[in-house]
Amino acid sequence: MPSLSIFGVTGLPEVTPGDDLATMIHAAAAEQGDPLLDGDIVIVTSKIVSKAEGCTVELVDVEPSPFAATWAAKWDKDPRVVEVVLRESKRVIRQIGPVLITETHHGFCCANSGVDQSSSGAAGRILTLPKDPDASCRQQRVVFADLGVDVAVIMSDTFGRPWREGQTDIAIGVAGINPLLSYIGQKDPHGHEFHVQEICTADELAGAGELVKGNTSRVPVAVVRGFEWERDDDASMAPVLRDSERDLFR
Amino acid sequence: MPSLSIFGVTGLPEVTPGDDLATMIHAAAAEQGDPLLDGDIVIVTSKIVSKAEGCTVELVDVEPSPFAATWAAKWDKDPRVVEVVLRESKRVIRQIGPVLITETHHGFCCANSGVDQSSSGAAGRILTLPKDPDASCRQQRVVFADLGVDVAVIMSDTFGRPWREGQTDIAIGVAGINPLLSYIGQKDPHGHEFHVQEICTADELAGAGELVKGNTSRVPVAVVRGFEWERDDDASMAPVLRDSERDLFR
Repeated sequence: MPSLSIFGVTGLPEVTPGDDLATMIHAAAAEQGDPLLDGDIVIVTSKIVSKAEGCTVELVDVEPSPFAATWAAKWDKDPRVVEVVLRESKRVIRQIGPVLITETHHGFCCANSGVDQSSSGAAGRILTLPKDPDASCRQQRVVFADLGVDVAVIMSDTFGRPWREGQTDIAIGVAGINPLLSYIGQKDPHGHEFHVQEICTADELAGAGELVKGNTSRVPVAVVRGFEWERDDDASMAPVLRDSERDLFR
Repeated sequence: MPSLSIFGVTGLPEVTPGDDLATMIHAAAAEQGDPLLDGDIVIVTSKIVSKAEGCTVELVDVEPSPFAATWAAKWDKDPRVVEVVLRESKRVIRQIGPVLITETHHGFCCANSGVDQSSSGAAGRILTLPKDPDASCRQQRVVFADLGVDVAVIMSDTFGRPWREGQTDIAIGVAGINPLLSYIGQKDPHGHEFHVQEICTADELAGAGELVKGNTSRVPVAVVRGFEWERDDDASMAPVLRDSERDLFR
């Protein structure tokens, strides 16, 4: 019978720049009586990675461009925040009313380049997404291996999407696990090719992790246990990021 | 410590029109040693609901419109399938190359109106989405209650999305559980309003269910146990379906 379990890792101290998250998570899981095991998938909320990597911007240091200042004034926004959102993007996808949907330098399409004003822990400071989420995950995976456990790492963030209300957690970085599971070329029991060609299991795993992390409960890490995955040390988010040439909605 | 478990329900017989799915699922879960419990969330793949409700179309009966026939010829598709896809939609969102993204009569935005050629079990027959997925879920929830368990029901389907490769399972019907969890007006420990306003937990639950169901393993039902949800007998997918006036991508 296929089954899995998911639990939150509680008791992490407040994260500060330079912290070694993997070691902290490994210790906190053991402390709560759930030591990490080989085959676990550790799902880490991006905001604690941003904090550990010092991905913060002091608004007092930001000089808004005329474009940012004009648009911010029109919609009653902080022009310095708008400036950071634009700097974190390579492209504006939609700018309609007060909404700014951008493509980040990594290639993620989301509101406000993933910039987060609510979680920085200080007025006048905002958090940006980690510079290279795959690299952050790979680094954590190496530390977990040094601590004796062979785990996959997924970095999650909470994004909106077209067409549907409500946000969901999705993957923005991976290590050890391929984010896509392909059925291409396989046939169902009736001999038809599958309607489904590729499942983005990394996004489903990130969303599943949110169910135990919540957004108010300050549980920034979830562990999925019992999901079978193939080790892939070269895994990255690259195959998930649809080329804009192939995208009907950019 | 927040935690949950997810397991697949195996051993369901092949579904045929008129089948009482809730009774079959209740029996199969008990049979495999996992009887359903109060508070469980039962996630049912839409295709078995379509089969139980007889949502099939015999292609021999379909007369393609000139529009369907012309476009099908251009892209080497079966004009009768294209005709069914158009009939199942109220609007074409994108028709570029061989891709047809539509809005179904229910308001779901997806490829080919959710029409599925691979799972019908017979050549020349295709499956369409259930007519009223919320109603189907409510009916199942009532049967589960009659069998003595107070469970939520979510109907899932596998959809693609803009910007990202790989499909994920999302919710297309609910009963008993509100699909959205709202943080609107709440503040984080630093006194900021939450960056996240509403989480679509129904979609995260549907995706989590896919992780044990898979798409080849013929496990059409998953059960999530341990997730806390508030009973809401009026729940429906309506609040998830963004009004097209508010949507930047239709």
